[in-house]
Amino acid sequence: MTANELFGNIRRKKSFLCVGLDSDIEKIPSFLKGAEDPVFEFNKGIIDATNEYAVAYKANIAFYEARGAEGWLSLKRTVEYLKEEHPGIFVIADAKRGDIGNTSKLYARAFFENMDCDAITVAPYMGEDSVTPFLGYPGKWLILLALTSNRGADDFQYHPDAENSLFKLVLEKSQSWADRDTMMYVVGATRAEMLKDIRKIVPDHFLLIPGVGAQGGSLRDVSENGMNSRCGLLVNSSRGIIFADNTRDYAKSAAEKAFELQQEMADQLKKTGLL
Amino acid sequence: MTANELFGNIRRKKSFLCVGLDSDIEKIPSFLKGAEDPVFEFNKGIIDATNEYAVAYKANIAFYEARGAEGWLSLKRTVEYLKEEHPGIFVIADAKRGDIGNTSKLYARAFFENMDCDAITVAPYMGEDSVTPFLGYPGKWLILLALTSNRGADDFQYHPDAENSLFKLVLEKSQSWADRDTMMYVVGATRAEMLKDIRKIVPDHFLLIPGVGAQGGSLRDVSENGMNSRCGLLVNSSRGIIFADNTRDYAKSAAEKAFELQQEMADQLKKTGLL
Repeated sequence: MTANELFGNIRRKKSFLCVGLDSDIEKIPSFLKGAEDPVFEFNKGIIDATNEYAVAYKANIAFYEARGAEGWLSLKRTVEYLKEEHPGIFVIADAKRGDIGNTSKLYARAFFENMDCDAITVAPYMGEDSVTPFLGYPGKWLILLALTSNRGADDFQYHPDAENSLFKLVLEKSQSWADRDTMMYVVGATRAEMLKDIRKIVPDHFLLIPGVGAQGGSLRDVSENGMNSRCGLLVNSSRGIIFADNTRDYAKSAAEKAFELQQEMADQLKKTGLL
Repeated sequence: MTANELFGNIRRKKSFLCVGLDSDIEKIPSFLKGAEDPVFEFNKGIIDATNEYAVAYKANIAFYEARGAEGWLSLKRTVEYLKEEHPGIFVIADAKRGDIGNTSKLYARAFFENMDCDAITVAPYMGEDSVTPFLGYPGKWLILLALTSNRGADDFQYHPDAENSLFKLVLEKSQSWADRDTMMYVVGATRAEMLKDIRKIVPDHFLLIPGVGAQGGSLRDVSENGMNSRCGLLVNSSRGIIFADNTRDYAKSAAEKAFELQQEMADQLKKTGLL
């Protein structure tokens, strides 16, 4: 999918919502637990109920990996379901991988060949040759961690100081590795005030923004500081949508929460003249 | 396993060798390919032939993950085999994970609960709360990336300069998160000249050194610059051992390569008076 196609979907759906499938088997409604693959059934319900309001889904790989081979099957089924039943949806593997070249190549194979994900999140610590093996898959994206939403982001991402911070170097240096049609950046919503600075470095790129909702970020702040002429934002919400309710109505409740966010997003898109 | 127990094993085996199970299904001997789980069969052969000369095995998770659910089963069987047939061997999941707290917790569950690995490699980019969820498992270890052996290490790990470099900050800051009985560091062997500097910051910790062999590092340089009073080194070799030969004699050839390294290691241990 190109950036223009993604922007087309955003305009059509009046939404830049990414639904996070952090599908913890311990938190899914108990009535699903007798199913052959409870997590996949849960995801299917969420996807069918929310896809009208979302342009992307992000599977947090840890929630699947924690269940071993069984979890990998749930993940594979979920990605297949998304690609088959809802073509055009952008599917992100939130894996935060990154290793020496020949190893990164295998992680790329895991998510781009064995599964048909559109994008994978990658950690930048090991530098260019740990990152570039994820490139070169036509239409696929690499989403590089820049500034994350957690408390620990302060430990290293601002090193040595705000002006010359590591995350800025990541944004600057990585732009020579891939263009804005194959690279996005993770920027935490709890740092919305930083988005203006970040837009000076990467004015045109898409940003994947986690941390709206349960992690405390504000959608308005993110939109006002981060939106560009092609929207340039995918805002993720996970727990606030998928675990809004753990009864038999979980999917309906998830749809309501996704709809609320979509409405706010439509407002923000209108405000900036993109709708 | 405590650091003293690990050192005990090193003295008993006269070896600080870690064998890297980068078991690429495309590279294993063809006669194994009819087996029910060819990668597990391959690993079993390698482990049985080399454990006399090694104190640790490191499974590079990408090689398993690239095969999806099936790969996870090979990995799980390999870890189980190591723990059951060769108790006392130190088993490392080379996963380079790291995410926000509740997600890192799940990665910890994947490798420490669902599998009985002794250690996991973790990427530091997201800071303390991405790292600490891997702690608190009695006897288990966290191995934090500090200075890696690949070319891309130069992109960010030396930021902003050699004196105040990111990797030094990682070494300094992380020492308050865990002690030398639960934390090790990854330091690439291609940077052996840096080991003296690194030992000034972390004199007592164990270091996991990849990059000897195929990646070009020298065992002598590493030993002379990095050894401490409890050895403090685990030196990994992967391809140089496991793919020394792809005939029916692959395990025998792997044993010969492991033996050669063990002999060199015994010499280094003697030189420094540890044997």
